[in-house]
Amino acid sequence: MRIVQKFGGTSVADPERIRNVARKVKREVDAGHQLAVVVSAMAGTTNQLVKWTSELSKRPDPREYDVVVSTGEQITTGLLAIALQEMGVPARSWMSWQLPIRTDDAFSKARIEAIQAEAMLADMKKGVVAVVPGFQGITAEGRVTTLGRGGSDTSAVALAAALHADRCDIFTDVDGVYTADPRIVAKARKLDRITYEEMLESASQGAKVLQVRSVEMGMKHHVRIQVLSSFSDAPGTLIVDEDEIVEKALVSGITYSRDEAKITVVKVADRPGIAAGLFGPLAEALINVDMIVQNVSDDGKTDITFTVPKADMDRAVECLKGLKPKLGYEAIKADANVVKLSVIGVGMRSHAGVAQRMFKTLSDKGINIQVISTSEIKISVLIAEEYTELALRALHTVYGLDAE
Amino acid sequence: MRIVQKFGGTSVADPERIRNVARKVKREVDAGHQLAVVVSAMAGTTNQLVKWTSELSKRPDPREYDVVVSTGEQITTGLLAIALQEMGVPARSWMSWQLPIRTDDAFSKARIEAIQAEAMLADMKKGVVAVVPGFQGITAEGRVTTLGRGGSDTSAVALAAALHADRCDIFTDVDGVYTADPRIVAKARKLDRITYEEMLESASQGAKVLQVRSVEMGMKHHVRIQVLSSFSDAPGTLIVDEDEIVEKALVSGITYSRDEAKITVVKVADRPGIAAGLFGPLAEALINVDMIVQNVSDDGKTDITFTVPKADMDRAVECLKGLKPKLGYEAIKADANVVKLSVIGVGMRSHAGVAQRMFKTLSDKGINIQVISTSEIKISVLIAEEYTELALRALHTVYGLDAE
Repeated sequence: MRIVQKFGGTSVADPERIRNVARKVKREVDAGHQLAVVVSAMAGTTNQLVKWTSELSKRPDPREYDVVVSTGEQITTGLLAIALQEMGVPARSWMSWQLPIRTDDAFSKARIEAIQAEAMLADMKKGVVAVVPGFQGITAEGRVTTLGRGGSDTSAVALAAALHADRCDIFTDVDGVYTADPRIVAKARKLDRITYEEMLESASQGAKVLQVRSVEMGMKHHVRIQVLSSFSDAPGTLIVDEDEIVEKALVSGITYSRDEAKITVVKVADRPGIAAGLFGPLAEALINVDMIVQNVSDDGKTDITFTVPKADMDRAVECLKGLKPKLGYEAIKADANVVKLSVIGVGMRSHAGVAQRMFKTLSDKGINIQVISTSEIKISVLIAEEYTELALRALHTVYGLDAE
Repeated sequence: MRIVQKFGGTSVADPERIRNVARKVKREVDAGHQLAVVVSAMAGTTNQLVKWTSELSKRPDPREYDVVVSTGEQITTGLLAIALQEMGVPARSWMSWQLPIRTDDAFSKARIEAIQAEAMLADMKKGVVAVVPGFQGITAEGRVTTLGRGGSDTSAVALAAALHADRCDIFTDVDGVYTADPRIVAKARKLDRITYEEMLESASQGAKVLQVRSVEMGMKHHVRIQVLSSFSDAPGTLIVDEDEIVEKALVSGITYSRDEAKITVVKVADRPGIAAGLFGPLAEALINVDMIVQNVSDDGKTDITFTVPKADMDRAVECLKGLKPKLGYEAIKADANVVKLSVIGVGMRSHAGVAQRMFKTLSDKGINIQVISTSEIKISVLIAEEYTELALRALHTVYGLDAE
């Protein structure tokens, strides 16, 4: 088999842990597999590098920012190669410019466009483990790029696609994908399998296990992704195509996100173009609007409510205040004390009543739903943040997800 | 003018000092010059990186070792580019693989073979400051190499040669080249100018201002090197061809080295081939022998005394013990409490009596000379370490080097 393994920052935080990673890699090599290993920077390193750039400039040139913050992974790459060789496992590091891993030129949030892995694959076929820095690449012009936070997951999946790997193991500090956050829901269960679509919705709706882009890429190239812990030997969760899951659950998981804030524009004129007049300027200010509801019109006036990232709330309010003369609304209300709960499952496609059950459960607990949005395999609601735990546990029970 | 500037690890130790470096660079840019800047890693960074590799392996693969330890300079390169841009100075980093800086494949002690600086020079001519990591390059195959400790000086001089720069400024934590170590000789004077040959002997004989290879390269390519402090604005010392120095001093400086140890092989048979039988095995063990003296023969037996690096003394003694059956000497004596003093000056070529004055001065102070070696512009003697300060000060006075 050909396997790509990816180890995150806590898994390579010091030489002792790097040795631990090398042992895991060695086990697969001893089993006769071809291995490519993608590593993150040691936990804390990237933050230190970012801090230095921000001490020198509030808005550092992203091209130079990328040169600085990409070094952390290069360190762990060399160190892991050394640790493997010390255990008698042939290994060599491959910098992203040596392959190369080609990205677009959206510095500090670049997207991988192509990976030329021929030379590396030839080396792997000779039994040499390839060690590759995650989170980075180079542009067509040969300048260093980074993929943005969590980008190492994407590097691993992209490499697995380029190598036609049989599996891509993402080692992290949790041991798989759960039906809900086990820190809040004690009865949460680890899933053996989950579909790409469900994982994608989970990642988008607040589950921090995998980066969204890595799941998208896995789905597109049919890479079998396994999420598992680098600190245990327990099997993890396999992310696969829907047809590989025999018994589909109605709901596979419940996620929450505290990263959003709610804004209401009160009594704005209900006329064509009002949504564009409102959301156009926010988009120009690079503020990402997520859930949107518009009340029924009353006397030609309406309320529009939407969510933005909590970090952008003040900026969004400022932006809207500047639009008052043009839009003629009555007031702006902003509320950061909200949480978005999402119920996710491919089973929804074929079963009605999933949403209704969610609304009834929350209502029974006396929890008011402020905003609702849905997709084919997901229902999200915005509620007051103080109900997070109560709501999560109640929904987990209602959908039959509790561990025995 | 086209100027290469090089800043060492203490000069870029934190963002505030990097800003200070940017200010120095800006001053030259504002004066209308084209600038390339070579930087070391932040002080302490490289040691940390080396420590990690040694925690994973006693003998790490030098190719992977180089991948790890070369990252420190890449960090400061990006940070300095950001600091310059923040001051309104156009700047960009050039990684050694982007130029490229080509070296041989003697990993971790590589030699620069060629620098392709055309693209960078074109950019510099547009007024963009080029920032380049010192201490590293890539092989013809495209693997990362480092040049060994102090290699950033060599990077700077090699880059100055490739760019046909008018000057190469080496900023360090001392403000120039002195007639002797000012920490020991209070009356030591800073030299305005010194010849390549003298600087080369000084660097070889213990003065730690510049790396030997950087001086060799400067001499070969006629690069005007200036050594100066990054923490003051005082002019430094210019290293130039001999014909640029009008008034040649008899002696330009006195150096000392505590890095050597003395070994005496007592009563070895004085027959042809004995020196080869002795020094061949040491060379094979990669032990570098420096000064050698052989006493006149007495009853067909002779004593051979020589020096080796102090760190290799025990290994050298072990090696010689193994040769006893073959060489048939009487005893081995080793002494680490020695210091090598060297008097250096191009004036010696045309003046006799320089050596005699040295021997007489030491004799007058009651200091015994254990070994002597000379070159065209240098006389070195080995004496007991306890006399270091006494001898240095006496010689400094005798050769008329004392500051007024």
